[in-house]
Amino acid sequence: KVIWTVLVTILGYASSLPVGDDSLCTAEELAKYKIIFIGKWSQTAFPKQYPLYRPPAQWSSLLGVTHSSDYSMWKKNEYASNGVRDFAEKGEAWVLMKEIEEAGEKIQSVHGIFSAPAISSGIGQTSTELEAHPRHPLVSFVVRIVPSPDWFVGIDSLNLCDGDRWTDEVTVDLFPYDAGTDSGFTFSSPNFATIPQDTVTEITCSSPSHPANSFYYPKLKNLPPIAQVTMVKIKKTQLGLSAPFINVPAKSNEIIDTVS
Amino acid sequence: KVIWTVLVTILGYASSLPVGDDSLCTAEELAKYKIIFIGKWSQTAFPKQYPLYRPPAQWSSLLGVTHSSDYSMWKKNEYASNGVRDFAEKGEAWVLMKEIEEAGEKIQSVHGIFSAPAISSGIGQTSTELEAHPRHPLVSFVVRIVPSPDWFVGIDSLNLCDGDRWTDEVTVDLFPYDAGTDSGFTFSSPNFATIPQDTVTEITCSSPSHPANSFYYPKLKNLPPIAQVTMVKIKKTQLGLSAPFINVPAKSNEIIDTVS
Repeated sequence: KVIWTVLVTILGYASSLPVGDDSLCTAEELAKYKIIFIGKWSQTAFPKQYPLYRPPAQWSSLLGVTHSSDYSMWKKNEYASNGVRDFAEKGEAWVLMKEIEEAGEKIQSVHGIFSAPAISSGIGQTSTELEAHPRHPLVSFVVRIVPSPDWFVGIDSLNLCDGDRWTDEVTVDLFPYDAGTDSGFTFSSPNFATIPQDTVTEITCSSPSHPANSFYYPKLKNLPPIAQVTMVKIKKTQLGLSAPFINVPAKSNEIIDTVS
Repeated sequence: KVIWTVLVTILGYASSLPVGDDSLCTAEELAKYKIIFIGKWSQTAFPKQYPLYRPPAQWSSLLGVTHSSDYSMWKKNEYASNGVRDFAEKGEAWVLMKEIEEAGEKIQSVHGIFSAPAISSGIGQTSTELEAHPRHPLVSFVVRIVPSPDWFVGIDSLNLCDGDRWTDEVTVDLFPYDAGTDSGFTFSSPNFATIPQDTVTEITCSSPSHPANSFYYPKLKNLPPIAQVTMVKIKKTQLGLSAPFINVPAKSNEIIDTVS
C-alpha cells in the first residue's frame, strides 16, 4: 500500500511519462552525490594544435542540473538552447541558469542546479555535490572546452536511480561535442556564427571530415576520452552532526577508496 | 533549560571560543541562502588599462565556504595560503578545495563548500546556494579578477547568524585585494613571483602608490565598488515537495522581490 501511494504520487506528477521511461524511480529518499570531473586534455593525447597560450588549454566552470525526463539541458542531434549556446561559446552561464530555473518553476521538471569551479589547465580536476530526487533522478551537465568555437563535453540525462535504489557509483568517459552555433574548425578559430544554427554533434577523429579540424586524426579509430566524470553516492550524515558535507578526495586515484 | 542545552553543546564543541566571539549562534536549524555575485567592472568605472582582449575583463568561478571561527579562508594583512595563491593567480581551485576539506576533517571547522560559475565579462552576475549551520555560521569566498597578477575580491568570515536567528538578507560592496604572491602592477603584468611572499592587502585608488598600478586614480577619494554580493535567506521548503531548490532571479533589480 505504501508503494502504491508512492507510485500514484509519481504518476500523478509526471502524467506525460512515456511508456517504458527509464526515469521511473521508486526510491523513497533524496540522494546526495559527489561529482568529480577530471580533465584529460593533454598535449600527448591531443597533439594537434594543442593550445599553449592566450589562453592555454583549460576547462570552464561545470554547470549541471538534476531533473526529470520533462527537461533536457542538451541533446545530441537536437538544437542547442540559447543558454547552452552562450555557455558553449563564451562560458557565460547566466542564460542557461535562467532556462533551468524556468523549467523548474513552470513544469517542475528540475530539482537542483550545481556548479564546480573551472580548471585552469587541460589536465586537472574539479568537484562539487549534487542532490537528486526520486522525481528528478536524471543528471545533465556541460563544461566548455577553452579555447574553442563552441565545443563542450557533458552528460545528457544520466539516470542515477535504478528502480527503488540509488546507484552507488558511476564513471563515464567524455568526448567533445559541437554546439552547432559557431562555425570554426580549430580551437582558436575566430568567432563566426553558424547561420542557420546546426544541431549538437559529436566531434570524432574523422568528423568533421576536414584536415583543418583540431580533432581530425585520420589514423586513429577513436579519439581518446578528453575528460571523465565520476559520481559517487555520499554516505548519509545525520542532520545536526557536525560532519562537513564536503569530501574532496586527496588524489584522483584515491577517489573510490575515500568514499567506500 | 532547552537554551542551556544548546549553549553547552556549542561551548563544548568550540572550546577555544574567544570571549566576545560574534560567531556564537544559538539558532536551532540550518539555513539556506541564495548568493548572488554581481560584477561591476566596467570600462566606464575603471577606464585605466581596462582589459579588452586576450582575455577581456572577466571573473573566475566563485569558490566559498561556510565555517566556524576556527577556520579562515583568507584575511587582510595575513599571508595567503597556497590554495588562495593558486586560485588568485590562476583560478585553480583544487588546492583550496583540499585545504577546506582538511579543515573540515581535522578540526570540524567547515560545514560546506559552494561554487558559482565564472562570468565571461566584467559586468554580469552569477549565483548559487549555500547552507550555513549554527556552529558554522560564517561565510567566506573568493573570486579571481581576470586578467590580473593575483588580484581577487571576496568576503572574509561574514556572520549570517544574529544571536538566535538567521539574517534575512545582506549586501556587501566588494573591492580588489592583492594576494601578495605575484609582483605585478597591471592587469596584464607577466607572472613574477613575490619572494618573500607578501601579505594580503587591499588595493585602493592610492595604494600601491605608483602611477603604473591599474587601480591608481589619484583624483579619486575611493574606488567605486568593482563587484557586489547579496545573500538572501531562502524560504524553507518541506522535503518531499517538488519545489526546486533553485531560485535564480530574472533581473538583478528584482533580486529582493523574488524571494521576499
